[in-house]
Amino acid sequence: MKKLMNAVDDVLTESLRGFGAAHADIVSVHFEPMFVTRKAGPKAGKVALLSGGGSGHEPMHAGFVGYGMLDAACPGQVFTSPTPDQMLAAAEAIDGGAGVLFIVKNYAGDVMNFEMAAEMSDGRIATVLTNDDVAVETSLHSQGRRGVAATVIVEKMVGAAAEKGADLDGCKALGERINAASGTMGVALTSCTVPAAGRPTFDIGENELEMGVGIHGEPGRRRVAMMSADAIAAETVGAICEDLKPGAGQEVLLLVNGMGGTPLLELYGMYDAARRQCEARGLSIARSLVGNYCTSLDMAGCSITLTKLDAELRSFWDAPVHTAALRWGM
Amino acid sequence: MKKLMNAVDDVLTESLRGFGAAHADIVSVHFEPMFVTRKAGPKAGKVALLSGGGSGHEPMHAGFVGYGMLDAACPGQVFTSPTPDQMLAAAEAIDGGAGVLFIVKNYAGDVMNFEMAAEMSDGRIATVLTNDDVAVETSLHSQGRRGVAATVIVEKMVGAAAEKGADLDGCKALGERINAASGTMGVALTSCTVPAAGRPTFDIGENELEMGVGIHGEPGRRRVAMMSADAIAAETVGAICEDLKPGAGQEVLLLVNGMGGTPLLELYGMYDAARRQCEARGLSIARSLVGNYCTSLDMAGCSITLTKLDAELRSFWDAPVHTAALRWGM
Repeated sequence: MKKLMNAVDDVLTESLRGFGAAHADIVSVHFEPMFVTRKAGPKAGKVALLSGGGSGHEPMHAGFVGYGMLDAACPGQVFTSPTPDQMLAAAEAIDGGAGVLFIVKNYAGDVMNFEMAAEMSDGRIATVLTNDDVAVETSLHSQGRRGVAATVIVEKMVGAAAEKGADLDGCKALGERINAASGTMGVALTSCTVPAAGRPTFDIGENELEMGVGIHGEPGRRRVAMMSADAIAAETVGAICEDLKPGAGQEVLLLVNGMGGTPLLELYGMYDAARRQCEARGLSIARSLVGNYCTSLDMAGCSITLTKLDAELRSFWDAPVHTAALRWGM
Repeated sequence: MKKLMNAVDDVLTESLRGFGAAHADIVSVHFEPMFVTRKAGPKAGKVALLSGGGSGHEPMHAGFVGYGMLDAACPGQVFTSPTPDQMLAAAEAIDGGAGVLFIVKNYAGDVMNFEMAAEMSDGRIATVLTNDDVAVETSLHSQGRRGVAATVIVEKMVGAAAEKGADLDGCKALGERINAASGTMGVALTSCTVPAAGRPTFDIGENELEMGVGIHGEPGRRRVAMMSADAIAAETVGAICEDLKPGAGQEVLLLVNGMGGTPLLELYGMYDAARRQCEARGLSIARSLVGNYCTSLDMAGCSITLTKLDAELRSFWDAPVHTAALRWGM
């Protein structure tokens, strides 16, 4: 294993310290317990959004803390859920009196710890569970489908609604609507390597691809011989459309998300392949995002996400955002 | 070689087509010859900025076309200079009557072809050469130092000056001043793989690092045993400071640039290490940028860039920008 790091045990702390220093105009990083909040502090009367999960998916979630998106993020150790004390401390720090919405990717550890934090909290808490991964029905770390890259879209759109004054029930309902309107499927060309493990999470041959891989390197649907970008796009977009059943002419947001080790040259080629698949199915791509947003350490590969849009969701997507990883309109 | 692509010969065209479709609100992509311009077209009376070079360094340069930065980019084949006809067609498309500034990384092919285009052009052309790489004095593809990640900073700051009405001579002088105020050094943990070659550009051992690597996988200063982030930061920041000789308290911009295959978790850890090296030398980090900006296909590794700032350069950095890869203030 070769990584840009010092001691394995310090990877997360040092990365988070660097993140806080590089974006000191946007975020504050807290240690013991570990969480990231907006520099600006809580906004009275606004629903506060809190997400979190194991590290290794950067920029998710800390990179999405800031105006128009999250109020706080709780990073766990690599691929390990954060603990309820992190969530409680973060929720307390950001509560502006209108309640706190937990946005939780559907993994057993995350679900359990966020539930525990919600029960222990004195504040008003609601939870949105994301489970957009259409690849498999249950997986190593989840009961039911996994929450993956559409979580970025939920955080962006609900973040915009919260800035506009939506209440806690409204934010929860909106998050659930976006999640239901979204589907994702990913592929891996290489494994990721967890620093503490020091070796690849799984073996994969020189000419193999994992179709439907999870963001922790969990198995997908099948191991196949390496496929062309067009064939990958056909299978992933096809699987998502089977799930979402979009009507002809449906407006969609198309997200081509890199897993961390794949360069933009390839991601834009993959976007072109996915775009042609969408258009062949009569979909209208109204918004696009291409880049590394929900990663899997150094894994090579990508995921494709489609979210069915309407005028309201489109306006929430377009609304100003100012975070380390997504920024527009300000 | 496993890459997200269809036929090797179509990698660049398909990637560029995807780029154009994903960012149709910002850019227009032209084929035969190949170049990328702002969607908005030329702006009368503004100096137009044109850059280009071999592909494989994305988002450089096409990702920097848009308000506040470049007017056009000419992508060559992977790691191969674009041709004079591309540059001529692009220059003609963007000339708003105030002349065109070529921003050229110092590689023999780029220098020759941009010179040829300048000679063939009927318009007013000036050129800024970037050569910020402090690692080696001459290299495989260059007479003199190589132009690398500080090119992003030149494009951003001169782009801001051009929007504010600087004339062609002023833009050229500013670009040369920023280049002289900047130094970069990079490291590689793995080789990149050029699609048409199908195999890694160079061999590197399981526990080796290339110190001072170029962005095409060219050799650096030496091949060493893998080093900690702190040791890499000490050597790279040290070499840059030997070159730039910043005074105590000097304000700097610190760019930690990923080579394409290294995830943000590591880049932020590397930022933290570089930040501590800067502070130990009495430098004041006034601005920061962390991410993949001047890449080397799928290479794992990073480069560190320092640019000495003053009030004017800081204001050019902070000015609004709206491109695919850098966006703030609008």
